[in-house]
Amino acid sequence: MDREHLKGRHPREIRAVIREGGFNEDTVGLAEGYVQANLVVVPQDQALDLLIFCQRNPQPCPVLEVTDTGEPSLKYMAQDADIRTDLAMYKIWEKGRCVADVENITDYWSDELVGVLLGCSWSFDWALLNAGIRLRHMEQGSAAPAYLSSIQCEPAGVFHGPVVVTMRPILKHQVARAVQTSSRYPAAHGAPVHVGDPAQIGIASLQDEYFGETSSLTELEPDEVPVFWACGVTPQAVAIEAHLDFMISHFPGRMFITDVPIEEIAMF
Amino acid sequence: MDREHLKGRHPREIRAVIREGGFNEDTVGLAEGYVQANLVVVPQDQALDLLIFCQRNPQPCPVLEVTDTGEPSLKYMAQDADIRTDLAMYKIWEKGRCVADVENITDYWSDELVGVLLGCSWSFDWALLNAGIRLRHMEQGSAAPAYLSSIQCEPAGVFHGPVVVTMRPILKHQVARAVQTSSRYPAAHGAPVHVGDPAQIGIASLQDEYFGETSSLTELEPDEVPVFWACGVTPQAVAIEAHLDFMISHFPGRMFITDVPIEEIAMF
Repeated sequence: MDREHLKGRHPREIRAVIREGGFNEDTVGLAEGYVQANLVVVPQDQALDLLIFCQRNPQPCPVLEVTDTGEPSLKYMAQDADIRTDLAMYKIWEKGRCVADVENITDYWSDELVGVLLGCSWSFDWALLNAGIRLRHMEQGSAAPAYLSSIQCEPAGVFHGPVVVTMRPILKHQVARAVQTSSRYPAAHGAPVHVGDPAQIGIASLQDEYFGETSSLTELEPDEVPVFWACGVTPQAVAIEAHLDFMISHFPGRMFITDVPIEEIAMF
Repeated sequence: MDREHLKGRHPREIRAVIREGGFNEDTVGLAEGYVQANLVVVPQDQALDLLIFCQRNPQPCPVLEVTDTGEPSLKYMAQDADIRTDLAMYKIWEKGRCVADVENITDYWSDELVGVLLGCSWSFDWALLNAGIRLRHMEQGSAAPAYLSSIQCEPAGVFHGPVVVTMRPILKHQVARAVQTSSRYPAAHGAPVHVGDPAQIGIASLQDEYFGETSSLTELEPDEVPVFWACGVTPQAVAIEAHLDFMISHFPGRMFITDVPIEEIAMF
């Protein structure tokens, strides 16, 4: 099923299509007005450290829900959902390397795993649009470009590593409004971590996208300022940096789509 | 040392006095402008469920810091602090009952314990005062009265039970401002959980204080509205309700005083 056919559908309908293997692209622009989420799955014996890591790093890792151990369904963010099948693509991480990209994690699931949903900045893109802020990636139907920054997470247990960020070119007269509006959504990464010169957070060039793509967004227009938000792909950079024994994550861009309207997670 | 002598002192000085046994009263009104915190200590094998419980109940249980297992010092909220000695009084909970009130927990500490600091509404009292909101308990130098509400926490693992609340009588024309101002401090319980009729959250009478005291605050003046905020004593009600095998908490009112100015935890 193509992206156009999914527009306007309720999250549970989109999840059903994804579950059946009917859609395998990134979920940007889908489920307008609903919260999307990053996924991190770890063995129970690492879950405490992961949650402490999230508590210490609330901008990259805002926790939306934690599953009970071994339980693939959710209680709060979606009904009749199964985190093993309801994302379009997953990454399997072993000893700090991605060893497989898979369409579901049923074969990898066990009673010892804990799933953590983290907020995603795509959630507040809708709020930014509603505030009249131009978002070129939304106009193009593409994901905001991501970068590895030099900002280091606060470590916890085995978890340590750099913060991954997304960048949105914002018109210079709309930067303050973009800060204000995104600040209302701490559960979706909240305020930017940096405004302006990419080099100040270790990004030598906007061409150096984390996922190797080059989007037209990396060429700024004269009246645009690059604004950087923490990204929920950060745990994947942590898996690499910290050589984590085992982790499952969503495939970047293929998010879990929740039933929760973004205004429900707004601070006020 | 009496309360007056501690006013105006830096948090680390107050902690030093408390550590030496020089002050053993509640800490309301001390360390003006600094964050105060509730303490919960559990065995490591219950810490994951406790953090999930906190994530599911962010109003009563906003996590400020989690210690590394067995580590009584803090990394973020205070320097040179020791959570075993730096609170004036602690409660030891076993099988759902308080079995001892003690001045330090050095004899109870072990390598298997994890300490969790939770925000406290006394932190935003300063902000309410700065916003011109009359707070009678601050005028009287007493703690805001606490109640057991009928609001139930979302359970997680062994943790379940009712939400404890504090009540502040707010002048009716200042209620909205009190909601706005406290909303800026989600890490200190944030917005109220209830405004108005106590019976709607299961409080039959404002005389029924949770700690058995009766303060003059429980008699409302004609132009006052009772406003209820979630309280960090909630885990103690959970210890009772859920018959927790073992927990250590602060003694209500004897808070941990952090080095962090309240504006550092303001949302924006």
